[in-house]
Amino acid sequence: MGCVQSFRDMCDRQKNTNVRMSLPAVCFVWQTAMIILFGVFIRYNEEADTHWIEHRKKNNISSDIENDFYFRYPSFQDVHVMIFVGFGFLMTFLKRYSFGAVGFNFLIAAFGLQWALLMQGWFHALDYSDGKIKIGVENLINADFCVAGCLIAYGAVLGKVSPVQLLVLTLFGITLFAVEEYIILDLIHARDAGGSMVIHTFGGYYGLAISWMLYRPNLDQSSRLQGSVYHSDVFAMIGTLFLWMFWPSFNSAITDHGDGQHRAAINTYLALAATVLTTVAISSLFQKHGKLDMVHIQNSTLAGGVAVGTAAEFMLMPYGSLIVGFCCGIISTLGYIYLTPFMEKYLKIQDTCGIHNLHAMPGVIGGIVGAITAAAASESVYGAEGLINTFDFEGEFKNTDPTRQGGLQAAGLCVAICFGVGGGIMVGCILRLPIWGDPADDNCFDDEPYWEVPEDEESIPPILQYNNHMQNKDIAESNFTMDQN
Amino acid sequence: MGCVQSFRDMCDRQKNTNVRMSLPAVCFVWQTAMIILFGVFIRYNEEADTHWIEHRKKNNISSDIENDFYFRYPSFQDVHVMIFVGFGFLMTFLKRYSFGAVGFNFLIAAFGLQWALLMQGWFHALDYSDGKIKIGVENLINADFCVAGCLIAYGAVLGKVSPVQLLVLTLFGITLFAVEEYIILDLIHARDAGGSMVIHTFGGYYGLAISWMLYRPNLDQSSRLQGSVYHSDVFAMIGTLFLWMFWPSFNSAITDHGDGQHRAAINTYLALAATVLTTVAISSLFQKHGKLDMVHIQNSTLAGGVAVGTAAEFMLMPYGSLIVGFCCGIISTLGYIYLTPFMEKYLKIQDTCGIHNLHAMPGVIGGIVGAITAAAASESVYGAEGLINTFDFEGEFKNTDPTRQGGLQAAGLCVAICFGVGGGIMVGCILRLPIWGDPADDNCFDDEPYWEVPEDEESIPPILQYNNHMQNKDIAESNFTMDQN
Amino acid sequence: MGCVQSFRDMCDRQKNTNVRMSLPAVCFVWQTAMIILFGVFIRYNEEADTHWIEHRKKNNISSDIENDFYFRYPSFQDVHVMIFVGFGFLMTFLKRYSFGAVGFNFLIAAFGLQWALLMQGWFHALDYSDGKIKIGVENLINADFCVAGCLIAYGAVLGKVSPVQLLVLTLFGITLFAVEEYIILDLIHARDAGGSMVIHTFGGYYGLAISWMLYRPNLDQSSRLQGSVYHSDVFAMIGTLFLWMFWPSFNSAITDHGDGQHRAAINTYLALAATVLTTVAISSLFQKHGKLDMVHIQNSTLAGGVAVGTAAEFMLMPYGSLIVGFCCGIISTLGYIYLTPFMEKYLKIQDTCGIHNLHAMPGVIGGIVGAITAAAASESVYGAEGLINTFDFEGEFKNTDPTRQGGLQAAGLCVAICFGVGGGIMVGCILRLPIWGDPADDNCFDDEPYWEVPEDEESIPPILQYNNHMQNKDIAESNFTMDQN
Repeated sequence: MGCVQSFRDMCDRQKNTNVRMSLPAVCFVWQTAMIILFGVFIRYNEEADTHWIEHRKKNNISSDIENDFYFRYPSFQDVHVMIFVGFGFLMTFLKRYSFGAVGFNFLIAAFGLQWALLMQGWFHALDYSDGKIKIGVENLINADFCVAGCLIAYGAVLGKVSPVQLLVLTLFGITLFAVEEYIILDLIHARDAGGSMVIHTFGGYYGLAISWMLYRPNLDQSSRLQGSVYHSDVFAMIGTLFLWMFWPSFNSAITDHGDGQHRAAINTYLALAATVLTTVAISSLFQKHGKLDMVHIQNSTLAGGVAVGTAAEFMLMPYGSLIVGFCCGIISTLGYIYLTPFMEKYLKIQDTCGIHNLHAMPGVIGGIVGAITAAAASESVYGAEGLINTFDFEGEFKNTDPTRQGGLQAAGLCVAICFGVGGGIMVGCILRLPIWGDPADDNCFDDEPYWEVPEDEESIPPILQYNNHMQNKDIAESNFTMDQN
Repeated sequence: MGCVQSFRDMCDRQKNTNVRMSLPAVCFVWQTAMIILFGVFIRYNEEADTHWIEHRKKNNISSDIENDFYFRYPSFQDVHVMIFVGFGFLMTFLKRYSFGAVGFNFLIAAFGLQWALLMQGWFHALDYSDGKIKIGVENLINADFCVAGCLIAYGAVLGKVSPVQLLVLTLFGITLFAVEEYIILDLIHARDAGGSMVIHTFGGYYGLAISWMLYRPNLDQSSRLQGSVYHSDVFAMIGTLFLWMFWPSFNSAITDHGDGQHRAAINTYLALAATVLTTVAISSLFQKHGKLDMVHIQNSTLAGGVAVGTAAEFMLMPYGSLIVGFCCGIISTLGYIYLTPFMEKYLKIQDTCGIHNLHAMPGVIGGIVGAITAAAASESVYGAEGLINTFDFEGEFKNTDPTRQGGLQAAGLCVAICFGVGGGIMVGCILRLPIWGDPADDNCFDDEPYWEVPEDEESIPPILQYNNHMQNKDIAESNFTMDQN
Repeated sequence: MGCVQSFRDMCDRQKNTNVRMSLPAVCFVWQTAMIILFGVFIRYNEEADTHWIEHRKKNNISSDIENDFYFRYPSFQDVHVMIFVGFGFLMTFLKRYSFGAVGFNFLIAAFGLQWALLMQGWFHALDYSDGKIKIGVENLINADFCVAGCLIAYGAVLGKVSPVQLLVLTLFGITLFAVEEYIILDLIHARDAGGSMVIHTFGGYYGLAISWMLYRPNLDQSSRLQGSVYHSDVFAMIGTLFLWMFWPSFNSAITDHGDGQHRAAINTYLALAATVLTTVAISSLFQKHGKLDMVHIQNSTLAGGVAVGTAAEFMLMPYGSLIVGFCCGIISTLGYIYLTPFMEKYLKIQDTCGIHNLHAMPGVIGGIVGAITAAAASESVYGAEGLINTFDFEGEFKNTDPTRQGGLQAAGLCVAICFGVGGGIMVGCILRLPIWGDPADDNCFDDEPYWEVPEDEESIPPILQYNNHMQNKDIAESNFTMDQN
């Protein structure tokens, strides 16, 4: 730990938040790289190509409606809304960091999805006959999923990093995600429809590890800005609600056509409903006078959707979904009350949005629920064909039985945690280098360093500002006099 | 009326808004009950179950795309947005009740949809072979519809009740709704695609009757909070627009596959467009200087969607939809100008959101339009098969003719009104009991009793600001004196 | 130019913003006219009519899912959100014009879509057998598209016109649009899926020409209101994000079933992603200290969606989309930095929202990209059948080859520009007449003339509040003294 500390000291030089060269440079170079790589590697798949009509005839597809576009596009758009409006507005709760919350979320998601199409394409969609990645609507959804992992990580470091750091975080995050996903889904053959493990566990621990590496002992110098105001809490509810409403689409977007999508949507819908009630209950029970805390309502109500992610496509049963949601509402809210302060004080992890309570912990629970549900699967419940379809017991994995599948699911969860923690520490090291333009400790949670903020007559009337200024000056002067005496 | 008054007096003891025991208790107990009941009763239907693949083969269904999921899921998501964002944000117009508007809306909808799945399931989806309720996407839509009735009622009592009262209102509201719906749709065999009668008329009168029972003679003590501020009106427009845009999905969500959904969407789209113009016209005409009133724009523009609910799936014709929308914009806006103050003054009904103008009245109009359109139906317009399909003249109702159907529609409307008024009075009685933690008269329309409200430098009360100012002035003057010396 | 000036002087009389007679009169008369015209002309098409079941059997359509409703309704709803929430909220950035931005957008869109159904119907959907226009979901989408052209134009005159002027602007705008669209798509046989030419180029130049005709030399008298505040910028981001997210639906909504919709969505998704990065890069590079400007993030990030509109359904290739987005982000942002001030100073075009940078210029680029992509099309890339399908080389146009199609596309672009500029000058003339109730120069960008604005304690500086309080107290006291006397 000593060497970590000395490395930290080395990095904590005078801060300069001017990103006028670094941010445009990174954006231009990376976007140009994307164009070149897309030119070399990416083409439309047979359902998005003009040859679709010939493909249809050859494969005896009776109607255009059987193009995968019509199975998945509505879910894709819902997921898209979650990524940009959901995650973006969820983070607007800080009184003076709404531009950064929505704007940087926008920036890194727009970069991330391009890089994700490439990374995931190389692992999953490479056509070996011509060396091209063939993309369609399912790839777009997967790219959005991949981005979600990085946006989760952003939640932990919200307000404490520069846009350049966020782009670096995203570049490495997407890369790690694609590898981890390949190991979990393809090599281990775990199932993870809604990404409890692949997205939320990984993203959560990735962000927490980075936040630990970027620990700021004097962050309380920004404490005046580390809270919400009335309107910013209402803005954040826009994010919460769009995430909550469209989570059934998230968990069902890439599941099997037909019953797979149908069942995943129902399970998620129910789990989320149960979470709301237990979140409200715990929030009221643990506050003085039984008042509800907006932080809990904004975040913990979503934990059920995370935790039901892996098992959503299984025969979890409606009551099973409710039980998962019930527990997660309790655990997540208690996490905000007890765990977040504990982690900041003793583990030196400053988790701005509480992603440990919303993503990491519920993600792990989701992985465990998935393992148990898979292990408990039986032909009597699923039917012979249903069992094969649901768990994809085909080809190489023809002889897997549910018990073994449960073990594979658990193995997948471990991989996700390892990649999250390990990758986060590595990337955190890189982000500590004093070249990225991150803000000083007394300048965090403020849009001012990176945005042209409009003068806002509503918040502080000019006459008052002037007087405040004078008062502060007087106090400073009198302090000076006292010091002299 | 004397006994009502004495009962009222008995109930109006000292108010205590601390819900620290009651709210968590209700949430936990009811959610646990849901889990148990879901465990006993609720299963997936054959389109969401892993046996779907066998079901497909047995019923000779050619493709997964014919799973009901793909017919209804996009509409379901739109309805879901209306319930949570639409209703929630529509009620944020009050300057200091946005948390309560969005948050309690969220809470009661999340509880209500679970209870609705059970109640509606027992009446409509019970499989007598095994005593289970089999759910799919259509049940989720119906549960959201059922919840809408209670959220409408919330609009009448907005700002004047505690979250525990709202949960009780919802429990009984859903129960009454399911019974009323069963009588209207199954026993009477009325058609009501968009729920003009079943949802809006019932919900509207239910809320108004409760509000009448909870009449507060001294509500003007909260008048300082009973208005909007600039930003809260913009937030409310988010609710208005999402309701307005997705109303075609609402009215077409559970209509017949094919032309039924198609026609219902077109009719609703047109009716809503016409309503906007007449609302603007009346709002401008009846205000001094022709200025528009945000209350009308936020609410009355939606009346056309309510009023076209029943007839949306009939051959109302595009011009018919426009006429309905035209009239409703006028009536609803005039309601806000004349009827709401009249009802408060003479009928002792305090209707915070004006649900009488937005839901109750247009709902009744919708019922009447539906009855007339049904009675006027003919084979020459609908075609022989079309007539049977549209009005479901099958089985037991094979010999119903359109004229008789018109009568049935009218009967359905009466049932909805009776259930609304009767149920509201009953539930209002219960809610007057002095155990629910409702706020005092001078504490209404305020988030402070039930929420941890952030300190908001923007909203520092003027007296404090003045003191700050004086203090600053003193300092400034002393500075001046010092300078002179 | 002299006569233009003298005409201008004649029109610039004393301003009276009272629209109490004119606004209701226009709304009532026009809505009544709509009802009559709809009664005479508009009916459901065979997919929305109760005869669908017979149509299905006759045409051997195997399932209800092949009703066009299921191909296009999800895209329609996304487009609908773009029109009402996207355009509406994008314009809320001004500190005191949010009501006007959202509310007038709502009004003119609701009127415009009715008029568009008629105008476009006469040109495209008239059934000559019975003289009726038969509408279905595709017509609703086209009506929304048509409205988009007028909402773009609204952006140029935002804050400087009365609602009556906006309705006139819309009436003529829709009319011109329908004619222009008929010439470009039907006579010239250009392809324009996402409307780069038909919607954006036309709408942009239409608005700019009107703004030029309505030039206000003394607009700086309203400069105190011509900026944003913190919260209004966040509201505007709601508009930006919903436009950005749903643009793939916009460009794919009316393309061919199957691969056409699929490919258009992918291309748009990619172009928009690239635009975000170059917008951020240029915004940072050209500002002091590298700070980002919200105006650029809100607007220029959308330019890629505009520019890819025409070519979205062609085989533009994923990297082609990225290149288009890359360039448009740069050009649009530079437009905000250099061109908008230049146009205001030297060309006397006051463009409130900068539609030249967001719609007009990218629209022209889109037209050119479309022409090039079409001209470069070949059977080796598209396949024989694919080429015919994509460019609709059928019937009268059977012998068109790609090179010629490229020329046709370019011709279409010229028509769009001519209609925009010419129509705008004509309509601008009409709007200068001193009868429409537009605001005076020192009253622009303010909701106060046309809306009942709530008294907002947040926005009144404390000193004023205190004085108000004292004044009221004085008055009360003097009343008291008078009573005693």
